[in-house]
Amino acid sequence: MIPTTMRAVRLYRPGEPLVIETIAVPQPGPGQLLLEVAACGLCGTDIHLAVDGDIPVARTPITLGHEAAGTIVQLGDGVSGFAPGQRVALFPSPICGQCRFCRTGRESLCEATQAYGMGSDGGLARYMVAPAVGAVAIPETVDFAAAAIITDGVSTPLHALRSRGALRAGEAVAVVGCGGLGAHAILLARMMGAGFIAAIDTQPLARARALAFGADLALDPVEQPNPGRAIRAELGRGVDLALEFVGRPETVETTLRCLDTGGRAVLVGVGPGRPSLPSLLAFVGREQAVIGSFGMDKRDIADLLQLVARGRLDLSRSVTRRFALSETNEALALLAKKDTGVVRFVVEPGR
Amino acid sequence: MIPTTMRAVRLYRPGEPLVIETIAVPQPGPGQLLLEVAACGLCGTDIHLAVDGDIPVARTPITLGHEAAGTIVQLGDGVSGFAPGQRVALFPSPICGQCRFCRTGRESLCEATQAYGMGSDGGLARYMVAPAVGAVAIPETVDFAAAAIITDGVSTPLHALRSRGALRAGEAVAVVGCGGLGAHAILLARMMGAGFIAAIDTQPLARARALAFGADLALDPVEQPNPGRAIRAELGRGVDLALEFVGRPETVETTLRCLDTGGRAVLVGVGPGRPSLPSLLAFVGREQAVIGSFGMDKRDIADLLQLVARGRLDLSRSVTRRFALSETNEALALLAKKDTGVVRFVVEPGR
Amino acid sequence: MIPTTMRAVRLYRPGEPLVIETIAVPQPGPGQLLLEVAACGLCGTDIHLAVDGDIPVARTPITLGHEAAGTIVQLGDGVSGFAPGQRVALFPSPICGQCRFCRTGRESLCEATQAYGMGSDGGLARYMVAPAVGAVAIPETVDFAAAAIITDGVSTPLHALRSRGALRAGEAVAVVGCGGLGAHAILLARMMGAGFIAAIDTQPLARARALAFGADLALDPVEQPNPGRAIRAELGRGVDLALEFVGRPETVETTLRCLDTGGRAVLVGVGPGRPSLPSLLAFVGREQAVIGSFGMDKRDIADLLQLVARGRLDLSRSVTRRFALSETNEALALLAKKDTGVVRFVVEPGR
Amino acid sequence: MIPTTMRAVRLYRPGEPLVIETIAVPQPGPGQLLLEVAACGLCGTDIHLAVDGDIPVARTPITLGHEAAGTIVQLGDGVSGFAPGQRVALFPSPICGQCRFCRTGRESLCEATQAYGMGSDGGLARYMVAPAVGAVAIPETVDFAAAAIITDGVSTPLHALRSRGALRAGEAVAVVGCGGLGAHAILLARMMGAGFIAAIDTQPLARARALAFGADLALDPVEQPNPGRAIRAELGRGVDLALEFVGRPETVETTLRCLDTGGRAVLVGVGPGRPSLPSLLAFVGREQAVIGSFGMDKRDIADLLQLVARGRLDLSRSVTRRFALSETNEALALLAKKDTGVVRFVVEPGR
Repeated sequence: MIPTTMRAVRLYRPGEPLVIETIAVPQPGPGQLLLEVAACGLCGTDIHLAVDGDIPVARTPITLGHEAAGTIVQLGDGVSGFAPGQRVALFPSPICGQCRFCRTGRESLCEATQAYGMGSDGGLARYMVAPAVGAVAIPETVDFAAAAIITDGVSTPLHALRSRGALRAGEAVAVVGCGGLGAHAILLARMMGAGFIAAIDTQPLARARALAFGADLALDPVEQPNPGRAIRAELGRGVDLALEFVGRPETVETTLRCLDTGGRAVLVGVGPGRPSLPSLLAFVGREQAVIGSFGMDKRDIADLLQLVARGRLDLSRSVTRRFALSETNEALALLAKKDTGVVRFVVEPGR
Repeated sequence: MIPTTMRAVRLYRPGEPLVIETIAVPQPGPGQLLLEVAACGLCGTDIHLAVDGDIPVARTPITLGHEAAGTIVQLGDGVSGFAPGQRVALFPSPICGQCRFCRTGRESLCEATQAYGMGSDGGLARYMVAPAVGAVAIPETVDFAAAAIITDGVSTPLHALRSRGALRAGEAVAVVGCGGLGAHAILLARMMGAGFIAAIDTQPLARARALAFGADLALDPVEQPNPGRAIRAELGRGVDLALEFVGRPETVETTLRCLDTGGRAVLVGVGPGRPSLPSLLAFVGREQAVIGSFGMDKRDIADLLQLVARGRLDLSRSVTRRFALSETNEALALLAKKDTGVVRFVVEPGR
Repeated sequence: MIPTTMRAVRLYRPGEPLVIETIAVPQPGPGQLLLEVAACGLCGTDIHLAVDGDIPVARTPITLGHEAAGTIVQLGDGVSGFAPGQRVALFPSPICGQCRFCRTGRESLCEATQAYGMGSDGGLARYMVAPAVGAVAIPETVDFAAAAIITDGVSTPLHALRSRGALRAGEAVAVVGCGGLGAHAILLARMMGAGFIAAIDTQPLARARALAFGADLALDPVEQPNPGRAIRAELGRGVDLALEFVGRPETVETTLRCLDTGGRAVLVGVGPGRPSLPSLLAFVGREQAVIGSFGMDKRDIADLLQLVARGRLDLSRSVTRRFALSETNEALALLAKKDTGVVRFVVEPGR
Repeated sequence: MIPTTMRAVRLYRPGEPLVIETIAVPQPGPGQLLLEVAACGLCGTDIHLAVDGDIPVARTPITLGHEAAGTIVQLGDGVSGFAPGQRVALFPSPICGQCRFCRTGRESLCEATQAYGMGSDGGLARYMVAPAVGAVAIPETVDFAAAAIITDGVSTPLHALRSRGALRAGEAVAVVGCGGLGAHAILLARMMGAGFIAAIDTQPLARARALAFGADLALDPVEQPNPGRAIRAELGRGVDLALEFVGRPETVETTLRCLDTGGRAVLVGVGPGRPSLPSLLAFVGREQAVIGSFGMDKRDIADLLQLVARGRLDLSRSVTRRFALSETNEALALLAKKDTGVVRFVVEPGR
């Protein structure tokens, strides 16, 4: 039996504690699923939403959480291909399935959507509704916590490396910003056969983890404002592909300094800042490129679930700690601290 | 018989008239050709070198001219595959043929070279030497003037559209800066099946020519500081591919404003300025890309010579006027004037 | 008012005349449109279905016709984004919109569909139903007949050239089989900047039309069983891209003989035959490729409608003749004759 | 001091034992290096040349061996960028460096060359000459035996997977023929993040090794003439990429049966046979592709040397046994036996 009320983590006002309160369990509309949430990851974006308030939400109060996995408990009208009892992970926004981007497998660009926890109620609750088109079946051997963080924390760097960065085996890579996304970028670049990986982060614990996850070189951009020099000393040239996960103009410039002639920089981090390119003489003369990468495709999530199920990708070090729903404020406060070595926190609403 | 001396157009000091003087005919070294120059195009870059002085040359005096075509009159040691009497066009810099970029068909990135007229003597002379590896045979039906401007003025926009921009038939294009390069970009985008072309230039004659060359829409960025709006009014969305030929931060920003979600901006214009990207929220969130495109590959030149020979590409409006060597200063002065409707000027040293 | 009955062209038994009879006007189900058909193209496939019987249909009687365009007259439940009165062209099969291929813009590979006129009633009738997901709006300036043939006769070769063949401007192309699809392949290869086009067909009228549509060379494979030789005599090498529109083992082998080292053959023609590759020493040693191309994506149809609307693609020679519904048997008989110079026939049910 | 004579393994007549005799040490011509050979791999091709005689050599006697690595002892005229004492691996044929393929980084298609041991004297000798353009520096930490087998046995499957097959992380792969090339294909597919690997071979030891190298499933095509069925049972669909290393029509057909709709088959194995495609209805209707892959690019060799040096690729199980030059006949006889579990044999002429 599905209860009529549930506990949920609600954002009323950024900067104030999230309110964990009892609200009605939502009903799945046509094309939607009702999901019993088993795990929901916490993400740097949640700190922007709940603590800093520099990324606005569409309405308050709103239930946070956009990295959800769980069990289907009810189907809305017209849903086929899914059944109650099935374990699924959710695309992190309620995609429309109809627009030109949804129809060509570029779901993160969906013209009609905003992420869960920003535009509509998310997964930090016992239940949530989601369009069936955003659900991906979880293989038996993959647990809910791994499936949850795959929906954003792992799929975002895969998208940046594979679809936007087009990493080829043997290429040299730099990762600027080695938090949850950046650490997984290193893990994935290793899995894809990158020939060399430089990790750049101001925090010692992040650099240590980067090396543990497979980086060849870890650089502190405070000590070495131009990490490109250290990379050139090691490689004899810059990197083929550099990824930025911070979202600040100065880190974008650091990223560009790492590039070889012909190199590509993929920008993943977001923020209000406007980075400058190098001079047009240098940028054009070296045929470099700067490429935005936003979120992930559904295909990225589906492939990662299989890669974990087949033992190709080891996420055993990715979930640093698991929390109950009632501990969400504590978890966010910990996450907001710098350099705690956290990869990803997961909240388990059924705990 | 090859004479021992010849007339050449020499740069002694930027801002002063070029000196047309008699110098020794050079000798081809190992791997080099001696070319009797039949035609040499004048380019906006020559104004930077000779008039403005904002792009430095490696030494003075230097013979200008990097868009040369002519007849082989002598082979240096070890040259095979060419014969005296053969008509060839020259890659616009004396590429080494040995570096990692030359070996993979990306000759404009050659690590050991600088363009003719900047690093070594160029084609504004009766004779010039060039490495055989930079020579491309001219089909019988293509005249020297067309071959000359193909080596840079036409191949640079082809490279930007085809190799760096990866234009697909049916895509919408914007061209920012419709001088010689931009006008040819429009002609080539038509040849490649672009679905829509917007031309953006401050000069009325340039806009008129853009329409004559195949643009669907010509916009004045002074009147419409955000031409993206006019494009969206016409298309219902931004363009897939926007090309920048001016090389200034503000025109780069104009270029980026024209892009659709997922669109690519290819930057060709060079200069000392450092353009800003849009905010990282917008640039990343729309998965846009900014791509540098520098010069051309040898393959671009070879393909264009065939396209003209087969009647696929009509360059009959591309050579606005032909000059004698002795008229070079006059030609450059005309070229430096804005909005004269010039596509390309060609100097014919044998005239 | 929509009538309750209508005239339709029905296949009862291959080899016998089609029956033009009165049947009920269908009702649009959920997600479907009811279309008043304005034009429906006839295709070589219709001869296989109705005359030769070598491609089976799912049931008889069935209304033929898979190249339809018309006006929406009624919307089924849950359809948004369309309105009665709107002019649309239809993807040539009732795609599901849900499978992995529909969701990534590769609609011709839809796992749940068969073409109109083969698996469900098609467009040779006054009205037809179709899923809204398969409808594409027709720009004002494009007439119904052009829109109809774009849905298959023009989009199939575009798909082969652009998505599967990845034609780059300047490349040399061979087209084997210059009927309706092949003739449009030539027209499109010109539009995309192909550097050279060889046309290969046994029929003199087809070869003459190929030259008129833009081929550089037309070859009779009966006279020249290895057209690759004539191509090499002209070009100095084989073609980069060869397309096959016949669907027979021997024409596939002819196609492969035209290829340069590194060349790609795209196979479009279908049939029961199993072609042989060249010896593995030759095929592997030359790094050639053979690529299947099936139908088109929705994007191909949408782009072609815009290319015609913008005057980029001229289909004025593509509709050879227009017929009334009652003349369909006569039209098919004419189409089945070889070498009549037909590009495409269109039936106009409202005539 | 370089001696004037040396021992070399010479092919006089296929089917007869190779003659190990004393011949003159060759002199490096212009552009060439003289190499003291430290290691030379033995390859299935050597059995074709020396035992079966079904691949012809250009002249007899000829020194066999096309997988060579060693130390530069002398430079011919005009060689720069190398110095005596430097450790290098050799591209397996004496590439010209000048043709259209050498100039664009596709060296295996060089129009002027044949492999060492087929067209010119190879590496089964104390010394050999080679064009400098074919030499690649060996990183300090990579030993000669690994460098030798990288030049063909490891680079050939990398080329097939990366350049021709364009393997993307997460894709499912099948490898048909799990000898030296196929085993390395499995190792490399793992390194590149393949989501699933099926190995197909008639020999039990080859299948066991395939599983040890990272395959998920090993199938015997004698027991299961259609391994595609077992793959579909496991995956729910066919593979995205299937590679063939045997070179026989029947194994090519097995390879094609493994493919998903939209899948690519890359053919690497060579032989005189001509394989058949599936019926055109099936091949075209499923948009499959068959792609030839011949040898490797220089870039493949250079990247692999770095990947081994950085610990990304473990070749510790790749060199099954090392032989002295005098043991070459014994080594070849062992190699010619089926199912001995050999990955690669290496001959060390200095031993």
